[in-house]
Amino acid sequence: MKRTNDVLVIGSVAFDAIETPFGKTDKIIGGAATYISLAASYLNRAGKTHLVGIVGDDFPQSGLDMFAEKGIDTKGLEIKEGGKTFFWSGKYHNDMNSRDTLVTELNVLAEFDPVLPEEYRSIPYLMLGNLEPRIQKSVIEQMEVRPELIVMDTMDFWIDSFRDDLLETLKLVDVISINDEEARQLSGEYSLVKASRKILAMGPKVVVIKKGEHGALLFNDHQVYFAPALPLEDVFDPTGAGDTFAGGFIGHLANVGGTEFDEMKRAILFGSALASFCVEKFGLERLENLSGEEISGRLREFIDLVQIDMEFV
Amino acid sequence: MKRTNDVLVIGSVAFDAIETPFGKTDKIIGGAATYISLAASYLNRAGKTHLVGIVGDDFPQSGLDMFAEKGIDTKGLEIKEGGKTFFWSGKYHNDMNSRDTLVTELNVLAEFDPVLPEEYRSIPYLMLGNLEPRIQKSVIEQMEVRPELIVMDTMDFWIDSFRDDLLETLKLVDVISINDEEARQLSGEYSLVKASRKILAMGPKVVVIKKGEHGALLFNDHQVYFAPALPLEDVFDPTGAGDTFAGGFIGHLANVGGTEFDEMKRAILFGSALASFCVEKFGLERLENLSGEEISGRLREFIDLVQIDMEFV
Repeated sequence: MKRTNDVLVIGSVAFDAIETPFGKTDKIIGGAATYISLAASYLNRAGKTHLVGIVGDDFPQSGLDMFAEKGIDTKGLEIKEGGKTFFWSGKYHNDMNSRDTLVTELNVLAEFDPVLPEEYRSIPYLMLGNLEPRIQKSVIEQMEVRPELIVMDTMDFWIDSFRDDLLETLKLVDVISINDEEARQLSGEYSLVKASRKILAMGPKVVVIKKGEHGALLFNDHQVYFAPALPLEDVFDPTGAGDTFAGGFIGHLANVGGTEFDEMKRAILFGSALASFCVEKFGLERLENLSGEEISGRLREFIDLVQIDMEFV
Repeated sequence: MKRTNDVLVIGSVAFDAIETPFGKTDKIIGGAATYISLAASYLNRAGKTHLVGIVGDDFPQSGLDMFAEKGIDTKGLEIKEGGKTFFWSGKYHNDMNSRDTLVTELNVLAEFDPVLPEEYRSIPYLMLGNLEPRIQKSVIEQMEVRPELIVMDTMDFWIDSFRDDLLETLKLVDVISINDEEARQLSGEYSLVKASRKILAMGPKVVVIKKGEHGALLFNDHQVYFAPALPLEDVFDPTGAGDTFAGGFIGHLANVGGTEFDEMKRAILFGSALASFCVEKFGLERLENLSGEEISGRLREFIDLVQIDMEFV
């Protein structure tokens, strides 16, 4: 079976308990791969999204149903008998730009060592959600056909404590999606222009730097593009915004079957639009119920925000 | 004489001593009105820029010559016999986003109480640089013809300690140019969308929020525009960038004789372009020597940075 527009997502599926200045949640479904898959599924109408991850048998049927409703294939989601699903709890500060992790219980994620189903090994769009770099690498190595596009996310913890492994994985990917602080940490450069140049030298052909409420930057070795963030009344809950952004990014690219820089510019706007929905409510609440009209309306707002009509002398 | 495109700038003319991670300067010429006037003079080819301020007799002839070379009229710049020019000294932190003031010697600025020359009282574009709000108001009251456009800048000190005076002045202006932290301080709102709405309710028809390396936002009561900042290799010295931005903003509006929102969008891009030059060297060094080609080339970079070609379904 040809899978020219399919997306393969690897990452955590989790329970989150979130506290923000606006309130707090009980354990709700979260995890990088969850947000990524949902976002990708909205944009990728030309292909299917496949999820590889691990949960315990405490993971509810309603969670599996949610994936099914979005057309997300969870054949690669291992349900570990007697195991408990990864649990994260965090509390955001008043400015919403920083948070404290209150609890991290890896549970079944500690033994996550994915073996890709045979039919996943030729999927052309591969999104490596934030995970131990060694696992990300093992997934790449299991691919029988080199994907058209490999995008990876990572986080401060891996940059700090698993730097060598991270650098090995980085050599194998096309795009790294990273936030501004992580880009500085990885490169040792404060200037994001210099940081991106150093990261490009580590392997990826494209660096995406997420700046949260300040938008996102896309660099290759000779071009730069800036996608604004929509000024919002309130950011209700930033959890998952970066993953939603990444999911929208790869979802759009898979949908059009593209990997060129101009297509990535559009993909970043789509990712930004989806992320702007994500932060409007707790967890997946807003992301679970989006219409195509809402998405294209939001995209239009992003375009209008920077639209200018200018003559040159 | 008709002055349909002239700009009147009121503000400080100063000596600055600046220390950044890249080096330090002796006393160099600075001050809000200096940066504003220089920036405005580059863009306003259709009219003249007039400067109202005060210096001591220690202010060098070379400074006056610099204004003259740029075609800036300094008839309104009072040179106080036996007085000393306002002096500010500051040191930037490593991230360039924050600074400590080391010395503030008001000197002649403490007695600044400008009386506008008769022929200045009908100038149509009025830029009130950062000053005590009471003085800004007195200048507005001296205008015999209500200007087409009054733009004011301010800073945390006035918001904090002269709030009532500031609110009085704010009622009389069309545009306030303010940075993100000041907008939050003035409005009591963290969200810049909410902050701008509250500030609009205080009087101005337009709020410009400067976010430094994160660009600038333009709000009126029903529209928003975002101008990106150009990702730079290094910010060498941020001193004067906000004033340069404001000068470019009003300089462009005066040049085209416009005050509508769409023209302000272009004006913000011009302001951003000039500010991006300002930070490349110490003080006025880069701003003193700019060509029209450099400015339009930089403007093109700003436009390209957010340029996207997108079809809608």
